[in-house]
Amino acid sequence: MSTEEAPAQQQQVKKPDEPPPAAAEGPQESAGGGGGSPAAEEKTLSNRALVLTGYGGYDKIKLQEKPLKSPQLQPGEVLVRVKACGLNFAELLGKQGLYELLPSPPVVLGMEGSGVVEAVGEDVKDRKVGDRVIAMNRSGMWQEWVVVPAQRTFPMPEEMSFEEAAALPINYMTAYMMLFEMANLRPGKSVLIHMAAGGVGVAATQLCQTVKDVTVFGTASASKHEVISQGGVTHPIDYRTKDYVTEIRKVSPKGVDIVLDPLGGSDTQKGFSLLKPLGILIVFGAANCVTGQKKNLFAMAKTWYNQLSLNTMKLMQTNKAISGFHLGYISDEELFERTLTSLLELYRQGKIKPRIDSCYHFEEVAEAMRRMHERQNIGKVVLLPEPKKKEEKSEVDAAENVEKNEAAVSEKKEEEEEEEVKAEN
Amino acid sequence: MSTEEAPAQQQQVKKPDEPPPAAAEGPQESAGGGGGSPAAEEKTLSNRALVLTGYGGYDKIKLQEKPLKSPQLQPGEVLVRVKACGLNFAELLGKQGLYELLPSPPVVLGMEGSGVVEAVGEDVKDRKVGDRVIAMNRSGMWQEWVVVPAQRTFPMPEEMSFEEAAALPINYMTAYMMLFEMANLRPGKSVLIHMAAGGVGVAATQLCQTVKDVTVFGTASASKHEVISQGGVTHPIDYRTKDYVTEIRKVSPKGVDIVLDPLGGSDTQKGFSLLKPLGILIVFGAANCVTGQKKNLFAMAKTWYNQLSLNTMKLMQTNKAISGFHLGYISDEELFERTLTSLLELYRQGKIKPRIDSCYHFEEVAEAMRRMHERQNIGKVVLLPEPKKKEEKSEVDAAENVEKNEAAVSEKKEEEEEEEVKAEN
Repeated sequence: MSTEEAPAQQQQVKKPDEPPPAAAEGPQESAGGGGGSPAAEEKTLSNRALVLTGYGGYDKIKLQEKPLKSPQLQPGEVLVRVKACGLNFAELLGKQGLYELLPSPPVVLGMEGSGVVEAVGEDVKDRKVGDRVIAMNRSGMWQEWVVVPAQRTFPMPEEMSFEEAAALPINYMTAYMMLFEMANLRPGKSVLIHMAAGGVGVAATQLCQTVKDVTVFGTASASKHEVISQGGVTHPIDYRTKDYVTEIRKVSPKGVDIVLDPLGGSDTQKGFSLLKPLGILIVFGAANCVTGQKKNLFAMAKTWYNQLSLNTMKLMQTNKAISGFHLGYISDEELFERTLTSLLELYRQGKIKPRIDSCYHFEEVAEAMRRMHERQNIGKVVLLPEPKKKEEKSEVDAAENVEKNEAAVSEKKEEEEEEEVKAEN
Repeated sequence: MSTEEAPAQQQQVKKPDEPPPAAAEGPQESAGGGGGSPAAEEKTLSNRALVLTGYGGYDKIKLQEKPLKSPQLQPGEVLVRVKACGLNFAELLGKQGLYELLPSPPVVLGMEGSGVVEAVGEDVKDRKVGDRVIAMNRSGMWQEWVVVPAQRTFPMPEEMSFEEAAALPINYMTAYMMLFEMANLRPGKSVLIHMAAGGVGVAATQLCQTVKDVTVFGTASASKHEVISQGGVTHPIDYRTKDYVTEIRKVSPKGVDIVLDPLGGSDTQKGFSLLKPLGILIVFGAANCVTGQKKNLFAMAKTWYNQLSLNTMKLMQTNKAISGFHLGYISDEELFERTLTSLLELYRQGKIKPRIDSCYHFEEVAEAMRRMHERQNIGKVVLLPEPKKKEEKSEVDAAENVEKNEAAVSEKKEEEEEEEVKAEN
């Protein structure tokens, strides 16, 4: 339901008078006006968008102008001016052609963001112009303007920043559903969180703190241990220098109750072996497939070959459970709403707080993705639609610059990255 | 830890003066006497036991006299005079050589029972002579006298009968751990219970009633629907005449949240297909392997061939979980104790009550097993060590009689049973 697809139908549009980027801050004064006759009031909104133009390296993502012609809202839809967007591992996969839910290029990337409602379609009763909202969509969130179903927007708590709001939905819903819907996290349990410094890792660690006496084993490179310990990881483990299975057995000879596995391949086998009886392993990614910047058939084959394949007899003899989780395949709107409502309540109570690793303007998307790809982040990498101000820019156009440098450095990077197969997204 | 294995060591034994069966009711008067010098007071207890003498038909189980010579209790052990025993599907499998946890024949069968403590070993503080207890062991419970670790005994509520106590442990612990430890049964969820009239089925149905708004789909032959409906099954389904997948989809197009699967094979695949996203299927048996009275290689191969084999990618795309459960492979004593304590509390509150289908004396074990094998039971089949009284007997010795008749009827039965592959144990 990206803006490009919004059909021209009967509607009740409230449009900002001035097109962006000049009108960059807050809801437009005129945005609260009544709906008009669409045909008569057709206007065009300037709209910067990050478009995946093909599969491959960072250069495949282009910052393009995709003007929005008189956004025609269908009943139940809202127009949102986006203030911040979340970067997810799914976009790294999508760039390589490994995310099957992403439409074929050219396509605007992005699954989550935050912003301000600028117009509402018919039948939208619980959102109004000026509302600060979290917004989600299957793709198309990485642009200045989006049209989404109102039920895919959620009012932000007053004290929440746009960056926090963009960082929350995917990572926290993933962690929440895994820990509380699939697994049965209760007091006294133990959890292994891979990539504990990544977006989902930080979210899962915080959610574990909402339950009494939960022991968290978290893998991350040593430089991040102080931060993740403060965040709630009981036993940080440097997977680069130590075998995490051995380290966990030292502390807990019987293993752990829950394993959250975003890696796949042989790590799934290790995680399964670490489970206590009645424990559950949840595979929610195949980060081991992603090594270099482009599709790596060898890494994929290796991950596929090593993936855990189980029959039910084996499960019975070990009293273990294995499951898969992929937020993208969940279409239960009521579940989304219930989960996000619970998360926003936890935020209001001060029990969770998205950790923003860094913010990049759209022009810097390649740097943002590289930061996540190389597992340099601790917490969420956020993208900002607002153009980088002149004084902030080091060059004429950072995005262009990045694209040009890309080819030169990518080969070297590829090699380096092969050494960093697993890490903390 | 069957009585045969109890080594002669330092002990503190309290023995009944008279050997059974003459002293059949209640704790022996002399049982409360002080411990003596074992060597000096060696006595022999008469002890009727049901022994599996080889793999095959009902005739392989013999009622034998296995006198207990001066039971030497190790520290922490208790001597229990057994009043009632539970029959489980595991013994049907064991008889066919399909239960890998059962020691090789000859072996005394039985995993659960109830009775009265007649002697306690050293260091036993929380059990005393005269206590009415539930007792569990890996095997060897089907005899008049058993020696078990005190921690494998649990005091019975006053209002509980020995028959109820023998019916509770295996079935209810299995159902409880599956529903509340592995699955995450909560208000509003739906559960498919195969063989809903069987021991585990009745237990699971009752436990589902302890949670608000749980919908139970239960398979059973039509003649049992009234009883299982009264027991709490929301939608009874006659699997013999209807396709349960179709029937469930009619009521709940999205499927169910939890499937308890004691069947295996193609039913596991059907159950998996019925799961809602975030749902879990728990395989806890392979009843489809058991068709005729003896090992059926064709049924086993078919069940094995059709068993669900999954890779993690498939689990991710469907957001489903699969697990196995087998109480026999759980060795966590604290978990046993915690679970049984919860169950006894639910019994005291009147929320669960074992349903006794029928009671058979040891002499009638073949009839008891056949009743379960042919899925005639609704609830638990119980075995009684106490000899059948003369007036109850139709012949000189029912057990002998059964053995003799066995050969004649078994061939015909085998054929009939092939038609009843699945049903409600």
